Amino acid sequence: MGDMTDVETTGAWLSREDLDNARERLPILYVNAVPVRVDDRGVVTHLGLLLRADNDGGIGQEVVGGRVLYHEKIRDALARHIEKDLGPMALPRIPVSPQPFTIAEFFPTPGVTAYHDSRQHAVSLAYIVAVVGDCRPQQDALDLSWVTPEEAASMAVRGEMAGSHGVLVRQALAHVGFPV
Amino acid sequence: MGDMTDVETTGAWLSREDLDNARERLPILYVNAVPVRVDDRGVVTHLGLLLRADNDGGIGQEVVGGRVLYHEKIRDALARHIEKDLGPMALPRIPVSPQPFTIAEFFPTPGVTAYHDSRQHAVSLAYIVAVVGDCRPQQDALDLSWVTPEEAASMAVRGEMAGSHGVLVRQALAHVGFPV
Amino acid sequence: MGDMTDVETTGAWLSREDLDNARERLPILYVNAVPVRVDDRGVVTHLGLLLRADNDGGIGQEVVGGRVLYHEKIRDALARHIEKDLGPMALPRIPVSPQPFTIAEFFPTPGVTAYHDSRQHAVSLAYIVAVVGDCRPQQDALDLSWVTPEEAASMAVRGEMAGSHGVLVRQALAHVGFPV
Amino acid sequence: MGDMTDVETTGAWLSREDLDNARERLPILYVNAVPVRVDDRGVVTHLGLLLRADNDGGIGQEVVGGRVLYHEKIRDALARHIEKDLGPMALPRIPVSPQPFTIAEFFPTPGVTAYHDSRQHAVSLAYIVAVVGDCRPQQDALDLSWVTPEEAASMAVRGEMAGSHGVLVRQALAHVGFPV
Repeated sequence: MGDMTDVETTGAWLSREDLDNARERLPILYVNAVPVRVDDRGVVTHLGLLLRADNDGGIGQEVVGGRVLYHEKIRDALARHIEKDLGPMALPRIPVSPQPFTIAEFFPTPGVTAYHDSRQHAVSLAYIVAVVGDCRPQQDALDLSWVTPEEAASMAVRGEMAGSHGVLVRQALAHVGFPV
Repeated sequence: MGDMTDVETTGAWLSREDLDNARERLPILYVNAVPVRVDDRGVVTHLGLLLRADNDGGIGQEVVGGRVLYHEKIRDALARHIEKDLGPMALPRIPVSPQPFTIAEFFPTPGVTAYHDSRQHAVSLAYIVAVVGDCRPQQDALDLSWVTPEEAASMAVRGEMAGSHGVLVRQALAHVGFPV
Repeated sequence: MGDMTDVETTGAWLSREDLDNARERLPILYVNAVPVRVDDRGVVTHLGLLLRADNDGGIGQEVVGGRVLYHEKIRDALARHIEKDLGPMALPRIPVSPQPFTIAEFFPTPGVTAYHDSRQHAVSLAYIVAVVGDCRPQQDALDLSWVTPEEAASMAVRGEMAGSHGVLVRQALAHVGFPV
Repeated sequence: MGDMTDVETTGAWLSREDLDNARERLPILYVNAVPVRVDDRGVVTHLGLLLRADNDGGIGQEVVGGRVLYHEKIRDALARHIEKDLGPMALPRIPVSPQPFTIAEFFPTPGVTAYHDSRQHAVSLAYIVAVVGDCRPQQDALDLSWVTPEEAASMAVRGEMAGSHGVLVRQALAHVGFPV
């Protein structure tokens, strides 16, 4: 889920060992952001997908996301992960309401829900975030591509998205009124 | 509800007589937009309120709104009414999702719901819309003022808002996480 | 959209001629209800689909729906159409919040949105409604079948649903967290 | 927030010491449920409030809530806490959608958000849950009272609710369309 470097950047809060320990004991709070380009009527024209090596040795398309830190607001976690994944010039429009379009429950055991994460039980608050600036893939992302809603829906169906991100993308498309 | 000039601008669709006739027979579809200023974390810092003569001879603060026309998309109705009320340079960020924060049912009979409109049965899809440009009150509005969420909540409680717009404003504040 | 008998039952409000006239001039307010069976954890186990002759001479699966009448609350319109389509013993659990899972904009011109209705411009507030009683197809419905979310998603993809009801069903499935 | 006995019932997952440790390092995932009675049109007639000693030595009215455990689904956490607080015969109608009406961010530092919890940084997914059975206060609750929406709004304004539960109750009332 794209936060493999969280430990380094947040060493003050939690060591790798402590985080691994917590991951076996507690649900870990995440945020996901589906980055989109919109026209001046608010219609989604493109979704941004990050090509990334996943936790199981493959590569796949993912959306933005990562852990919420101790004493960090959800809005700030969203902004931080968007900057971490898309760069400092992405100019995201963080949503005005804290209500996510869905809550994605990632379980370490496959099949419990539609979402799977072999490392942990993560509960992700998922938002659609319009970005209006210049986006560049950062850190561990190999590429950032902008695809139309139709293309994103097709890629999700064909299983080209890492882990459970295809499910998340289609939930997002449904939420904006696109016929998934 | 701020659309007294709808007939003139949309004469091709419906005459005043036909509209009056329909208003006695059918629920009329409206949109409302609560215009807000946000900071770069999506936190609402101000709400825009229009001072306007209401239908009952008083004046009061209102939010943006008006009728959805035949063969008009909701997004387009929102954009049109924002331009009509705030001017062509308001630069609204029309929401990506068609899901409103509430559905306000205005009844001609007081007390049926929390919303009242003496002229008609109107069902309004209500959205929060961030505007980033230059806003100027248009047409029948006497003034446009930007108030903090705290001020807006107080004004709503004190009954300084026209008709049922105080209720709508507090619903909007609750939706963005403000403690109403 | 399953309300061909609205005129007869509501003759006091609007004649067939007046309704036809209004349908050429104004967006008509609708409600749709996707009837579901749930287990004791709120998980949707089945969706109810009505087999019905559509407006274009074919037959197809539809969800519950129809017009909102003058001076009728949305909750009451939902309850009335559920009783009209599923019978008086359906025991629906009308949602506590007026927020729909989507707003479906049916246009008479195909392709404007994902929803099409050759007769009119209808704007439908769409809700998911759990029913716990005994449901029987009424009036113009040929059959009522209960299908699993997986079956409903497949039927929607295969185009077995009338008009745009397949889109509506998949939006509903996405909203309840089913991987469409 | 009403989960002081979580450790005992879930000892297999996390010791008191480990939980205390995690609470200083990670946001802890919670659920809250505002229990309501509804009429057959889905209109909220009463809210259920638990009288409870809070963490700071006072007593106040609270809604249902507590921690989400490792490998526990949100629906199951909701059902478990409702049973823990209202008894095994409450017959809750767990919501069909995972979308909460709000996300309440409780910070250990007062004033960061509208929600405060001196023990921890807790992020709560908050739902409105209709209960149709027989409710009895359990464990640490001194009393359970059912109040009308009007009474609940007044109590929230007068500060009779523990911690930040007054804010949560008013957000819930706004979400169901009650004029807060």
